[in-house]
Amino acid sequence: MTPDLARAGEELAAECARYTAMGWMRGTSGNLSVVLDRDPLRLAVTVSGKDKGELTPDDVVVVDADGATEDPVKVPSAEAGLHARIAAVAGAGAVVHVHALAPVVAAELWPDGVELRDLEMLKGFGRAAHDDRVVVPVVPNSQDMRVLGNAFEAGFRADVPALLVARHGVYVWGEDLRRARHRLECLEWLLRFKVETRRHAP
Amino acid sequence: MTPDLARAGEELAAECARYTAMGWMRGTSGNLSVVLDRDPLRLAVTVSGKDKGELTPDDVVVVDADGATEDPVKVPSAEAGLHARIAAVAGAGAVVHVHALAPVVAAELWPDGVELRDLEMLKGFGRAAHDDRVVVPVVPNSQDMRVLGNAFEAGFRADVPALLVARHGVYVWGEDLRRARHRLECLEWLLRFKVETRRHAP
Amino acid sequence: MTPDLARAGEELAAECARYTAMGWMRGTSGNLSVVLDRDPLRLAVTVSGKDKGELTPDDVVVVDADGATEDPVKVPSAEAGLHARIAAVAGAGAVVHVHALAPVVAAELWPDGVELRDLEMLKGFGRAAHDDRVVVPVVPNSQDMRVLGNAFEAGFRADVPALLVARHGVYVWGEDLRRARHRLECLEWLLRFKVETRRHAP
Amino acid sequence: MTPDLARAGEELAAECARYTAMGWMRGTSGNLSVVLDRDPLRLAVTVSGKDKGELTPDDVVVVDADGATEDPVKVPSAEAGLHARIAAVAGAGAVVHVHALAPVVAAELWPDGVELRDLEMLKGFGRAAHDDRVVVPVVPNSQDMRVLGNAFEAGFRADVPALLVARHGVYVWGEDLRRARHRLECLEWLLRFKVETRRHAP
Repeated sequence: MTPDLARAGEELAAECARYTAMGWMRGTSGNLSVVLDRDPLRLAVTVSGKDKGELTPDDVVVVDADGATEDPVKVPSAEAGLHARIAAVAGAGAVVHVHALAPVVAAELWPDGVELRDLEMLKGFGRAAHDDRVVVPVVPNSQDMRVLGNAFEAGFRADVPALLVARHGVYVWGEDLRRARHRLECLEWLLRFKVETRRHAP
Repeated sequence: MTPDLARAGEELAAECARYTAMGWMRGTSGNLSVVLDRDPLRLAVTVSGKDKGELTPDDVVVVDADGATEDPVKVPSAEAGLHARIAAVAGAGAVVHVHALAPVVAAELWPDGVELRDLEMLKGFGRAAHDDRVVVPVVPNSQDMRVLGNAFEAGFRADVPALLVARHGVYVWGEDLRRARHRLECLEWLLRFKVETRRHAP
Repeated sequence: MTPDLARAGEELAAECARYTAMGWMRGTSGNLSVVLDRDPLRLAVTVSGKDKGELTPDDVVVVDADGATEDPVKVPSAEAGLHARIAAVAGAGAVVHVHALAPVVAAELWPDGVELRDLEMLKGFGRAAHDDRVVVPVVPNSQDMRVLGNAFEAGFRADVPALLVARHGVYVWGEDLRRARHRLECLEWLLRFKVETRRHAP
Repeated sequence: MTPDLARAGEELAAECARYTAMGWMRGTSGNLSVVLDRDPLRLAVTVSGKDKGELTPDDVVVVDADGATEDPVKVPSAEAGLHARIAAVAGAGAVVHVHALAPVVAAELWPDGVELRDLEMLKGFGRAAHDDRVVVPVVPNSQDMRVLGNAFEAGFRADVPALLVARHGVYVWGEDLRRARHRLECLEWLLRFKVETRRHAP
């Protein structure tokens, strides 16, 4: 392991443990990645099929821009290809994908995109708290990462660092894992607020 | 204690502590088991009446295919007979039974079985994320494990590793405790999603 | 401190920390007691006004059958009189009073008493899982412990070890703190189930 | 650092960690302050932009009555000016501002103020449990702390130690951080109760 990969492994395992404790990575769901190199693109991504609350820094594998690995043993997450696509298109340094409930409920209620506006927490998502309409795109679920990646890219806007995959989960990205985490936490709060207040609408 | 039983006791206590922390084993509710031998069937099952957050590896008792024990002191869970039946019929290596709320609410709302389809989390339950209709069976509650066992067996399908007992709780099984856990966590998520989105249906 | 009182203090502090972590003793709310002597009645009750997540074994005070203390310094919970009344009338060895949300919501929705029936969790409350109608009494809130105590006694049945105080909280009792805890946990689950399924009723 | 500032830093970091664990400071949201001096007013306030679950006692900065600092390096929370205004007008020794969900949902449902009455938890908010009508004021969100401060002051009543900022969060204050915490915890409970029971209203 290179020092960069070792450090990425430590950070990825720590973030996974955090999200697992929040109930956002039930079963073996979800996966996180960090960019190691830009040219050519190389990412460290969490391995497939492990309990995300029990990852070690070694449970990480290097993939290329297609999500493919040359690792003879470790299997990257099946969604590594979408991580790589997001990192390439959005220029993100870290991509987090979790199965929090509120984002998936929101995607079900607003399948054409979830509109958020005039909420303080939008600042933590990189937008303005007033008069700034944000629409988080929703794409249909697929097992083909090229299909998902094309749908992502078709709806991509540089100022919306998140993607909802219907009946599946949420992707959020940022410069590094810390900033992606803050955006994810704010977005999850916003979507819970949106779902909760819809219930009470007259 | 044999080494196998001692190891089973350690694993069962650890899993119980985990589920208790999630609020799924309130009071002294729920029970877990692992298969020790297949022929004749012998299972290690958690003892009756103890706080599941405070089990020790010794709080485990060996039962046969009828859920009966020869242990002169320890009392197995009253539901040990259903654990043994599930292990025999489904060929499971571990059976977990918890009183999470969402499964019992779902069983109340869909008493003829809970249909799940086109949801990514179904992969963590051993099924496909698309075009694969899953119906989790619901059986009426009973204190007679033969009655429950017959109802379970009547609705058993090898590709649905779970059973909802109405107004009671959920059983999930798998090759070992880890895999049963992952299936349970995914099923609980799916049932929360199902209940939450029903509330918002037009 | 007598050894009995010291042990009671340790147990009361530990149980308070547990309930605080569950969100059931927000602010400085709630109070717990254990009976030290029956004739005349003496109880160890948690002191007033402290954060229940930060109690020490010393934060306990001895009260008599009226909830009064001879302690020159420590102030017992204002509700000590009701604890003593419950201990006397029900013969309980421990009384727990917490401000969990579901019991107070249930008391609001069913002000004439909350009916529970045909639910497995009733076994953990000391009743049968089938064909056994349980009505948890609801009394109006009051700051006068004699008024509350009279309302409690008027509706007391030996087979219902709990009392809901409207717009306030829940009392549950048992032989000791452990058994009171198990009954409380089961009752809270039952009331959450009752509230959740009412929401979905046609 | 003066001893007072060092102690304030320790207490602020500990309270932030507590609220973060409760999910009330997602992303980098929320900020806390304690008064160091009254004349002229000086407060220690948490720095801007950090994860509130990872603050150290050093992540605190001194501001004046306008929320301005002379610190050459550290940036106070953008809301420091409102903290100072509340401390001045209400005479509070500590001000806590968090993004718990229920207060923001309540502000959305009752934009003219949230009425609370005849609830035991009001005692933990400094009011009576009976026949004492409390209205928690709601003000529109703003990024200008003078606008927010003026709206706060216009609706200020000495017996209501809280302010809801619509689509943003809640401020609660008290003599010190501990008492502000207890009031916040009680208010959050009260607003959850209010929101939950509204859902069930006929």
